[in-house]
Amino acid sequence: MFASIRSRCLPARQLASTARAAASCARTVFPASRLGCRASYHKPARSEAFKRLTKDDLAYFKAIMPSETVLATAQVGGTADAIELEGFNADWLNKYRGDSQLVLRPKTTEQVSQILQYCNTHRIAVVPQGGNTGLVGGSVPVHDEVVLSLRNMSKIRSYDELSGILVCDAGCVLEELGNYVGERGHIMPLDLGAKGSCHIGGNVAANAGGIRFLRYGSLHGSVLGLEVVLADGTVLDNLSTLRKDNTGYDLKQLFIGSEGTLGVVTGVSVATPQKPSAVNVAVLGVPTYECVQRAFKLARKRCGEVLSAYEFWDANCMGAVLRHHELKSPLGAEFPFYVLIETSGSNKEHDDEKLGALLEELMEEGIAEDGALAQDDSQIARMWSMREGIPESLGKTGPTYKYDVSIPIPVLYDIVGDIARRLETAGLYKPGDATRPVKLVCGYGHIGDGNLHLNVVAERFEDRVTEIFEPYVYEWVASHRGSISAEHGVGLMKRDYLRYSKSPEMIAYMKRVKDLFDPNHILNPYKVV
Amino acid sequence: MFASIRSRCLPARQLASTARAAASCARTVFPASRLGCRASYHKPARSEAFKRLTKDDLAYFKAIMPSETVLATAQVGGTADAIELEGFNADWLNKYRGDSQLVLRPKTTEQVSQILQYCNTHRIAVVPQGGNTGLVGGSVPVHDEVVLSLRNMSKIRSYDELSGILVCDAGCVLEELGNYVGERGHIMPLDLGAKGSCHIGGNVAANAGGIRFLRYGSLHGSVLGLEVVLADGTVLDNLSTLRKDNTGYDLKQLFIGSEGTLGVVTGVSVATPQKPSAVNVAVLGVPTYECVQRAFKLARKRCGEVLSAYEFWDANCMGAVLRHHELKSPLGAEFPFYVLIETSGSNKEHDDEKLGALLEELMEEGIAEDGALAQDDSQIARMWSMREGIPESLGKTGPTYKYDVSIPIPVLYDIVGDIARRLETAGLYKPGDATRPVKLVCGYGHIGDGNLHLNVVAERFEDRVTEIFEPYVYEWVASHRGSISAEHGVGLMKRDYLRYSKSPEMIAYMKRVKDLFDPNHILNPYKVV
Repeated sequence: MFASIRSRCLPARQLASTARAAASCARTVFPASRLGCRASYHKPARSEAFKRLTKDDLAYFKAIMPSETVLATAQVGGTADAIELEGFNADWLNKYRGDSQLVLRPKTTEQVSQILQYCNTHRIAVVPQGGNTGLVGGSVPVHDEVVLSLRNMSKIRSYDELSGILVCDAGCVLEELGNYVGERGHIMPLDLGAKGSCHIGGNVAANAGGIRFLRYGSLHGSVLGLEVVLADGTVLDNLSTLRKDNTGYDLKQLFIGSEGTLGVVTGVSVATPQKPSAVNVAVLGVPTYECVQRAFKLARKRCGEVLSAYEFWDANCMGAVLRHHELKSPLGAEFPFYVLIETSGSNKEHDDEKLGALLEELMEEGIAEDGALAQDDSQIARMWSMREGIPESLGKTGPTYKYDVSIPIPVLYDIVGDIARRLETAGLYKPGDATRPVKLVCGYGHIGDGNLHLNVVAERFEDRVTEIFEPYVYEWVASHRGSISAEHGVGLMKRDYLRYSKSPEMIAYMKRVKDLFDPNHILNPYKVV
Repeated sequence: MFASIRSRCLPARQLASTARAAASCARTVFPASRLGCRASYHKPARSEAFKRLTKDDLAYFKAIMPSETVLATAQVGGTADAIELEGFNADWLNKYRGDSQLVLRPKTTEQVSQILQYCNTHRIAVVPQGGNTGLVGGSVPVHDEVVLSLRNMSKIRSYDELSGILVCDAGCVLEELGNYVGERGHIMPLDLGAKGSCHIGGNVAANAGGIRFLRYGSLHGSVLGLEVVLADGTVLDNLSTLRKDNTGYDLKQLFIGSEGTLGVVTGVSVATPQKPSAVNVAVLGVPTYECVQRAFKLARKRCGEVLSAYEFWDANCMGAVLRHHELKSPLGAEFPFYVLIETSGSNKEHDDEKLGALLEELMEEGIAEDGALAQDDSQIARMWSMREGIPESLGKTGPTYKYDVSIPIPVLYDIVGDIARRLETAGLYKPGDATRPVKLVCGYGHIGDGNLHLNVVAERFEDRVTEIFEPYVYEWVASHRGSISAEHGVGLMKRDYLRYSKSPEMIAYMKRVKDLFDPNHILNPYKVV
């Protein structure tokens, strides 16, 4: 059976024909303008506690930083066209949009400190921004907040090849860091579709998860230190390069996942794991969600320490990817579910043997009905591009409602069916009927982490569709003791729904922590808590 | 060469003769009374902000909890002998000692909440206590604080065999949890010498490291949720069983490593890794510290994902262990350094091959001069008992000064030589001269984590010896950008030295966080910040 899995792998000719398409789709973030119409969403009123910018404010910023790092429209005394600020005002899904007239792109921590000290004194609201690849409206202004972009802070500060500990500016792009440490025998402990654009500082602020979480765990474990500028300009230097440091409260943990509401991350110290010398990837066709779970259990048992990813997606996701990326499935037929298994280890022969035995067992037991094993790096990249191409493919199909939730694995996929039925009952969706406002209901995600991405593609963002999901999705998740945000964060999107995942006491203490670090609430207002 | 490593492993007869000794020393915590004279240490004055207990207070506690859970001396209106409170007042090294007259051992979170609410209202100081195995005086009272022992809260609340997520009371003993999840195919993500006595709640409060840190990382990564009772009795229920949850600030992280000064951990949710089906252990004799490092580098390269421990100790440690545990070295001769390498994986044959290749290379390159590979579980246990028996062996040799520090690996062992020279210059120590006040200077630890345990065995704890180390050790560590506490915490011992590892801004914000969660500072006073 195992031999037949191998023999079904993408033939060379087909690979060649899909190589360009795959290369163009893998791990890139595409401009918002390609994504169709804008969403309607609840936008809180502008707080009058915040000062409106004047020419004097602009003069101050111009005095403390190089002129090319200050981007201001005529409205605040500058010369930039509004269009130049477009990329800072809108998120990449083009769902959330602010109206900032000033973008500051400091080059040093000292400049960040001066900016914040001034803004805090003058009650000027600030939105810190990394690669702006967030999915919950956390990284764009809601109104006229100053955008504090970290993109000019992108230097590697130090790297220790023995310990694998990297210290760098917050504005370093994840993929570039991956290349840098990759040349030195290590890998970054996280990887995600937006790697070509997202910043490590943004990853930390969002507590990004991604596809390596299963193996290397959360940033709460792999981030060793942070340099953070607080709202009043205080620089909290906790840029430790030690794996162990039990000297007092681990304050840096608060900033991991705080989405820029407690401070601005300017420097990051992170432990990078040893680069595996052998990587294997297989894609399986699986008949039921129950089999997806059984395959996961077996994968953990058979591949143990070398299992580095276990992803799944459903037939609707696969359809969208194949349509939009001109890819051909490596499998001979269509299946209700697809699973991608990756192993990473230090001995190719051993890993082949472990994965081979697993695949054979999965086929023999009927848990998988078909499978393909990548034969080289380009096939590995192509298999990953199927999984990672899903968000873009769905985006090309139409405006996409995205819910990122944690749910206990046994019931994880149930929500997809429930939502589809709910939409059908409301007459908004019928599979195969292109005239309905909802085109596609689908699910994919990191099943090993209990993390589902529920996506619904519609004709347009509109209230009658939104009302089907919200608060229903959150209620559903809460009733299963799940999390309404597994890895995307809260941002603007889920601020009003926090109570579905956190108790009143927890929320009350979050607010107190906010008050402690940012008493004037100038940092990323209207978001998180 | 590799064959000769195998052949030198402990012969069966010798193993039998040492089995009892090893079994008795492995992973047990021995009573304080066996450890010799008490230390002199800086004891801050009692704060008069705290109420002295009265009979009315005792009456309140007796009203809310079963009488057998309240242990009070005559001084506060009870009937217990002071001797009954001895084990709660003194730490296991018998170095720190308080004078509590009241020990409360609640059975429920609700009782903990009632106790704290009352104490907060009446400004009664409280020291939360788990297994009382800490090494920095963090878990015993300084003066007359009420001891809040969690030992009556020791139930497993839930266990999910698919995900490996355990939820339990804080008072569960680590070893018992290990047995419980072990029977279900998993292991606890941490392991340490005190496992037979320490509580999981204490592990969390201390952010315990231990011997699995290298493989499974910090508790900041593996603890998924906590139930914490705050000083005012508020129960913060964040007992999540989700691997991913990005809904707001990750407040639980603050309590990990806060040593009971911010709240009392009553429940813990923790991810337990898959139990490896194959475990191998080897002990090597190594000529220099430089070779200890080279062997580590090679071990990471050759064993990669299956490397689960890399520990080292010096000749003085080995001497003490062999003397006090009636063990014989598995190696044919004495060496300046010893290394223990453990692999854990899912395929015995693969692991044997990886470790075998490593050992062969180490011997061929002269990095290791001798080695023994355990042939079965009892030999594995015995090799570990050598490493884990070090603290007890040193304690039996005499009162032991213990410093737990993080230092960059290349200079990690230098401090041991520096301290020895400093003691020699002061005339306090001369190797082999039993008449000097200091008997032994030695080092061991988790080199993979950059974590050294510097131990100095003396005739007694006395100021002229203490003055040689403090603040010298902390200055030394700070000058190398290390941490003055890698895994033991701050407690009472290092509170005055925090500034060597944390900036004034960091310490200022720690104090503000303390004010936020425990405004009356009733929790574990005189400690941490």
